[in-house]
Amino acid sequence: MNKAPEAEILSVGTELLLGHVTNTDARDVSEMLSRIGLNVKYHSVVGDNPERLRQCVEIARGRADVIITTGGLGPTCDDLTKQVLADCFGLPLERSEEVEKSLYEYIRTGRGLTPNTHQQALLPEGCTVFPNSCGTAPGCAFEKDGKVVVMLPGPPKECRAMFERSALPYLRALSDETIVSHCLNIFGIGESGVDDIFAEEMNRMINPTMAPYAKECDCLLQITAKAHSEEEAEAMIAPVEAHVRQVLGERVYGKDLECLEQAAMEALKASGKAFAACESCTGGDIARRFTELPGASAFFLGGAVTYVNAVKTELAGVPEALLEEKTAVSREVAAAMAEGIRARLGADLAVSVTGLAGPDGDGVHEVGTVFIALAAEGQTFVRETHMGAFRTRSFIRRMAGNHAFDMIRRYLGGLKVE
Amino acid sequence: MNKAPEAEILSVGTELLLGHVTNTDARDVSEMLSRIGLNVKYHSVVGDNPERLRQCVEIARGRADVIITTGGLGPTCDDLTKQVLADCFGLPLERSEEVEKSLYEYIRTGRGLTPNTHQQALLPEGCTVFPNSCGTAPGCAFEKDGKVVVMLPGPPKECRAMFERSALPYLRALSDETIVSHCLNIFGIGESGVDDIFAEEMNRMINPTMAPYAKECDCLLQITAKAHSEEEAEAMIAPVEAHVRQVLGERVYGKDLECLEQAAMEALKASGKAFAACESCTGGDIARRFTELPGASAFFLGGAVTYVNAVKTELAGVPEALLEEKTAVSREVAAAMAEGIRARLGADLAVSVTGLAGPDGDGVHEVGTVFIALAAEGQTFVRETHMGAFRTRSFIRRMAGNHAFDMIRRYLGGLKVE
Repeated sequence: MNKAPEAEILSVGTELLLGHVTNTDARDVSEMLSRIGLNVKYHSVVGDNPERLRQCVEIARGRADVIITTGGLGPTCDDLTKQVLADCFGLPLERSEEVEKSLYEYIRTGRGLTPNTHQQALLPEGCTVFPNSCGTAPGCAFEKDGKVVVMLPGPPKECRAMFERSALPYLRALSDETIVSHCLNIFGIGESGVDDIFAEEMNRMINPTMAPYAKECDCLLQITAKAHSEEEAEAMIAPVEAHVRQVLGERVYGKDLECLEQAAMEALKASGKAFAACESCTGGDIARRFTELPGASAFFLGGAVTYVNAVKTELAGVPEALLEEKTAVSREVAAAMAEGIRARLGADLAVSVTGLAGPDGDGVHEVGTVFIALAAEGQTFVRETHMGAFRTRSFIRRMAGNHAFDMIRRYLGGLKVE
Repeated sequence: MNKAPEAEILSVGTELLLGHVTNTDARDVSEMLSRIGLNVKYHSVVGDNPERLRQCVEIARGRADVIITTGGLGPTCDDLTKQVLADCFGLPLERSEEVEKSLYEYIRTGRGLTPNTHQQALLPEGCTVFPNSCGTAPGCAFEKDGKVVVMLPGPPKECRAMFERSALPYLRALSDETIVSHCLNIFGIGESGVDDIFAEEMNRMINPTMAPYAKECDCLLQITAKAHSEEEAEAMIAPVEAHVRQVLGERVYGKDLECLEQAAMEALKASGKAFAACESCTGGDIARRFTELPGASAFFLGGAVTYVNAVKTELAGVPEALLEEKTAVSREVAAAMAEGIRARLGADLAVSVTGLAGPDGDGVHEVGTVFIALAAEGQTFVRETHMGAFRTRSFIRRMAGNHAFDMIRRYLGGLKVE
């Protein structure tokens, strides 16, 4: 292919159209494709209906070079993707003995054999088979009439694993241009703020290019370069990255990270320290987010979810008198929660959150008023935030968690914490 | 409209194609549309590009009666949805004084005014304006050439709120047939198990219809009836629902619920009891999930996230000797964690989780081995689960949480707990 190929992700499944599940496959595949410079131009979702699926395939091949399907590969009679795609491209289905053998092996490991399991061994003639490392349905890919078709299973874990192990190398081999993209992770200034700062230079840039993107409670600046080799592309990105880091300073918390807890994890790893948490309005979300990262147990001792005041006293030793005098939503109680849990669990660091996530208020503070504290050896820091009553409960909780992780990475990095 | 109208959801935003955000709007809108019997046949996603958006609109109006757009209504120059849709349907944009006035009011409440704010007051001629209760960009709807167009903002909270307050009543008024749909929530048997039980009768059913759907760690059975009135439709659903409940028994945990924690919340409300939690491998996810529900504070005291063994002892009073003898992944430690936190916080009930969520094992137990306990007055129940090492960390954590909530609702409902 001469120009950068353009892709469409076509997801198949009535459950998506009914709103029973969210199309995370399209997000995952898009994100992974952007790493190899394949431009995704469209997502489509269609139900388990052969005629409508056929029409979607026709539309996709009229406007995209690469069609990536997710879903509809399983053994139930709803699963039509292989049949319809093969048919649209004039390929017969043929039985793969190799796949049939691996299906039997998988089944021997304990999963049930359904009457339709054999159907999964039927694949478009001449395709490249993608084994499924965490399920039964294999995926596949083929090139026909100048188009590339890749079929991935619907269950998110299977889709992601197969994409990384099989589809990514397959697709990489199709392009003669190397595209490298890096994201700088930013917290403490929003997408529009970043846009304001760099708008003029971004408009002038051709290769590399730069674009800001909003995430739920932080943002990204993506720098993308096209070149003949990866090294060349990286060399083109480096000075742009350095410039952005210089302008945004400490607000750049990482590069190619998914979230702020990863930045905190890296800082904890580098310093060999572990933390504890005492959470009121975040209700365990800080602990949950950090322990979502594999390997978290080396850097997180545990903590308390102190949803009611008595528990703040019982588990984190917050004095009752302080709660009475200052109320739970206060700088002093946030500090006492962090100091209390730190002492109790013998942690190097402790973070705490107390505030109003809404939708109901306490009659005193505005919803969105949240105090976040970090207790360390000999000093405690508190941030006071007013996120605004128009924010959702889940936004306020996530943002409060981001502040806590930001305080950890800043403290350990020797940066300004409050 | 004579036949049930068919809908397409067209989401606009380059950030979706880059995989930076997940298209939760399409899920939310689909789910809300299914309640009024509007069949969603397609989702599409396109970037902030007027030409490609125009082509998608043309495709959508060729195959759907109702086009619902999400995103691209804001004040930045990327936001093109209104212009393109109006243009495709041959409508000029006109300035709405009413909208302009409300924009000023919103800005006075503290958000910044951008140079492009005025653009948001430009709307397709003759459209119905949908005010934005939690942002600036208004939405709108119009009928033209036998098609209905509804435009909603991209930020999920704004999209959801505007749909419920404005778009839902607007769309309801368009249909002369009433469709009612209810979902029975099921835990303890999977989608394929439900399918096996009811396959034959589902094939025979015409109106009402019934279909099972898998969710991440539980499943649904949706019953849908079409009639001339809501009462008539409900009357058609009632005997089917009764039959399903009779066959599936206690495994039906609710009706039209989002998740098991809601069933637990309802049972706690009905009994006036509150619970506490002691979490190891779920890492705070049970607390987080429950406190995501508004009003949780009346039924949840708080708890401990006891990620390392010393914290199990310190916060939940689990004897060190027991941890040494039985290891943290054991029936006995699960029970001691629940009993310990219950006593410590004086809760009516307490749940605990300890196990291996992976990806790394402990060299003794298989990943996916998880013990879930419920401690109540005078008795403690423990479930032992082996979810399989092929499961993801997040699946194992979510499933463990579902077991905990299931044990709460079963205990309070007088059902079998273990």
